[in-house]
Amino acid sequence: MPKRLLVDMDGVMADIYQQAINFEFAESGRKIRMEDVEGKDEIVAFPNAKRHVNERGFFRNAPVMKDAQEVLRALHDVYEIYIVSAAMEFPTSLEEKYEWLQEHFPFISWKNIILCGSKVPVTGDILIDDHYKNLDPFVNRTLLFTQPHNTKEDRGHERVNSWQEVAALLL
Amino acid sequence: MPKRLLVDMDGVMADIYQQAINFEFAESGRKIRMEDVEGKDEIVAFPNAKRHVNERGFFRNAPVMKDAQEVLRALHDVYEIYIVSAAMEFPTSLEEKYEWLQEHFPFISWKNIILCGSKVPVTGDILIDDHYKNLDPFVNRTLLFTQPHNTKEDRGHERVNSWQEVAALLL
Repeated sequence: MPKRLLVDMDGVMADIYQQAINFEFAESGRKIRMEDVEGKDEIVAFPNAKRHVNERGFFRNAPVMKDAQEVLRALHDVYEIYIVSAAMEFPTSLEEKYEWLQEHFPFISWKNIILCGSKVPVTGDILIDDHYKNLDPFVNRTLLFTQPHNTKEDRGHERVNSWQEVAALLL
Repeated sequence: MPKRLLVDMDGVMADIYQQAINFEFAESGRKIRMEDVEGKDEIVAFPNAKRHVNERGFFRNAPVMKDAQEVLRALHDVYEIYIVSAAMEFPTSLEEKYEWLQEHFPFISWKNIILCGSKVPVTGDILIDDHYKNLDPFVNRTLLFTQPHNTKEDRGHERVNSWQEVAALLL
């Protein structure tokens, strides 16, 4: 039986920081730089994010994280992959996330998508996520995908800085 | 720690048979009776169901199953409840299901909603569901909620015919 690999969407497959920067720039002309948001919680880093994530298109048009498509396609041959996204906080994102996955990751079946609130009841052998709140309670192997909000802390998860590093560990 | 109770939506919380009957009647004037669909797969019982479930409003306006609100509110005081719905097959249903839950079960937090394809990765102590495909692989306690499509078979799950019977077993 292949190992079950759980993969987070926002900040792992989808470049949500770039999208928040895009939305802030479109609204105010203010260009937020990555070094400005380092180590800050996302809500602090992007003062208008709470509104932007509820706007149509925020998730649907988010850029794909570099190398995510190629590496996930290769992982798909070896692992049982489930996409697990804490989407329920933003109900307008639900259909957008489904459509985004269909467009950019058509090899992922609808059977293997989980949109939830808490990820605690979802089990697997490996979890790739950028949030400690999801990784900390997970009982099996955890990969912390580097994002500006998580760089200042180390809670003992394996850190990966790119999809190439994920490939080096898991393929 | 409270036990984790997983509850299916369609055919358990939402009266999807009644809704399929309503949609068929609205379209063709044909009044399907419960005794006509006994023991039949839902797709066979409702020839236009595949189209109807993808129409806006099908899930949003589904009737609530008798006594589901009162019993789930009482269960909510005792169990950690997660709503687990295999909604990903019908992407237009995602936001509708969230809104339906908000309207009829406002005491269920968004954190405790899981919309998925396969339910296999979702774990809990008890699962209430009307489909064998979800109950058979579940490792802990299983309650089969009676619906016309599941009456002709017995695969060893505890059968419940109403929410009052759920209450009698779990409260």
